[in-house]
Amino acid sequence: MAVPRAGEGRLAVLALGGNAILKAGQEARDDVQIENLRSAFRMMLPLLDLYPRMVITHGNGPQVGNILLRNELCHAEVPSMPLDVCVAESQGQIAYMALQAWDRACRLLRTEVPMVPVITRTVVSGDDPAFQEPSKPIGPYYSRERAEVLSMEKGWVFLEDTKRGGMRRVVPSPNVVKVAKEEHLRTLAESLIPPFAVLCGGGGGVPVVQTTAGLSGVEAVVDKDLTSARLAEVLKADILIMVTDVEAVYLDFTSDRPRPLRKVTVEELGRHVAEGQFPPGSMDPKVEAATRFVKATGRKAVITSADRLMEALDGKAGTTVE
Amino acid sequence: MAVPRAGEGRLAVLALGGNAILKAGQEARDDVQIENLRSAFRMMLPLLDLYPRMVITHGNGPQVGNILLRNELCHAEVPSMPLDVCVAESQGQIAYMALQAWDRACRLLRTEVPMVPVITRTVVSGDDPAFQEPSKPIGPYYSRERAEVLSMEKGWVFLEDTKRGGMRRVVPSPNVVKVAKEEHLRTLAESLIPPFAVLCGGGGGVPVVQTTAGLSGVEAVVDKDLTSARLAEVLKADILIMVTDVEAVYLDFTSDRPRPLRKVTVEELGRHVAEGQFPPGSMDPKVEAATRFVKATGRKAVITSADRLMEALDGKAGTTVE
Repeated sequence: MAVPRAGEGRLAVLALGGNAILKAGQEARDDVQIENLRSAFRMMLPLLDLYPRMVITHGNGPQVGNILLRNELCHAEVPSMPLDVCVAESQGQIAYMALQAWDRACRLLRTEVPMVPVITRTVVSGDDPAFQEPSKPIGPYYSRERAEVLSMEKGWVFLEDTKRGGMRRVVPSPNVVKVAKEEHLRTLAESLIPPFAVLCGGGGGVPVVQTTAGLSGVEAVVDKDLTSARLAEVLKADILIMVTDVEAVYLDFTSDRPRPLRKVTVEELGRHVAEGQFPPGSMDPKVEAATRFVKATGRKAVITSADRLMEALDGKAGTTVE
Repeated sequence: MAVPRAGEGRLAVLALGGNAILKAGQEARDDVQIENLRSAFRMMLPLLDLYPRMVITHGNGPQVGNILLRNELCHAEVPSMPLDVCVAESQGQIAYMALQAWDRACRLLRTEVPMVPVITRTVVSGDDPAFQEPSKPIGPYYSRERAEVLSMEKGWVFLEDTKRGGMRRVVPSPNVVKVAKEEHLRTLAESLIPPFAVLCGGGGGVPVVQTTAGLSGVEAVVDKDLTSARLAEVLKADILIMVTDVEAVYLDFTSDRPRPLRKVTVEELGRHVAEGQFPPGSMDPKVEAATRFVKATGRKAVITSADRLMEALDGKAGTTVE
């Protein structure tokens, strides 16, 4: 068998949904999260035969939520960290749990594949209209009084959540301009001996804007699927795979008869978007990410669940966008 | 001028002391820490002319302390993370602040040098005698009652701090066996085009032990200087530089007439250690790290403060161990 060489072998960017780390209703303990990740990685590892260079991104919702909650509960005792710093913390936390989970999954499959975890920033534009209308709810629920204080002190924007009866901070979710220093991630992907995994872009990357003083953090969040699409383009990935909790993209998802999309062109997908088929914040950013990647590269994107990955690559499950 | 090539150029491992990030008495705000780091990096950047490949490690004491404090204050509301996960969080947090500080320092010097931040684990031995006698104080002060609960529930060990009148958790500080996946850090150092910096080994790395299931986290801390010495050896560094808050290693440090050691052999240094010249936990691990690196490689180690770095490399300041 030929010895693999650096920079050779097909490259896949895999975006891991938040439920691969913590499922709804689970307690956010580290052992629970490591076990979830181990299970997801066990299903992803066989893909290395097809794509020996794997770049993995991941969500961070519940993790950064808990970090923000701790910051708020202790604000009188310990200086609170801004959102961007908390996102970076969640990247470190998840990367470390992922490393342990990856090791365990490798052991089970009697293989040893390196995973290199890199803290990632994502460049957004300060002129992005998202900064004018923050819309992404983040962190804990606040009392009306506390929300007023934070609004005055820090300029935070809150929306009332009438269902839960509390105030929720909303932040901008600007578009991805590029991944900061993305050329170094490319160097990494071209320099390591396959098979390998690079873990990066956690939580979409910490958002930063270019200033005259350098890249500077902003209190916003970036959609990890859009960051993944950018990474896939820049790293010249052969495929973009988005792993989520449903097997495929569905039409009429909330109806009696949801229909999976098995194979779809970007044009067809665009028509479904225009019809309002995909709810914002859930399937919508995945569809948008797939569309961007396929349009930019002519390559394919797949949306499926972890347990159907291999079938999806054969076109027997999941949604393939071409 | 010749175009630099990957893997070429001298390599320095620089271990940054905690006070380069947060000075005693300062509030642990992110802007304060970014500014401290910017100031330290501004003094380190000129070294790239001599050592175009720079691997930077750093302490994490106050940062992981605050993360642990938040975990403890909120333990009733949010599941607490174990020490190893908190160390990983601090790596993410500091790496992100360092990235911004590095950018700003580069701008000031009208240069652009990449910094690649990698989450790092350090392998320790489960048989290390340190696990029998935890000695390193970490995290917040606890009431006697709370300490008893934690001791029962989690098996934590506490010591009474009579000065501060509280209970302090103590954890093992085992020796460094190796850096986990250190071969990939070597690949990185040999693959990037100089000049560059790799940031890794934060807080000494998250301690893990080898188990049949893979590398598994342990609640302990690793001395960052010892991790740095190991990294310097494995990466075939030309020099190990430890940046701290004193200009040099001193003899009779607490006397009326402290004398700086300017140039010293490992044998001479060993005699001073035997005399008990260096306090444990402070200068002692630096002296031990320098000794290990110089013994293993025959190369030199330097201990000095950030503002004397260039002079120290000329032998005009700091302590050079040969």
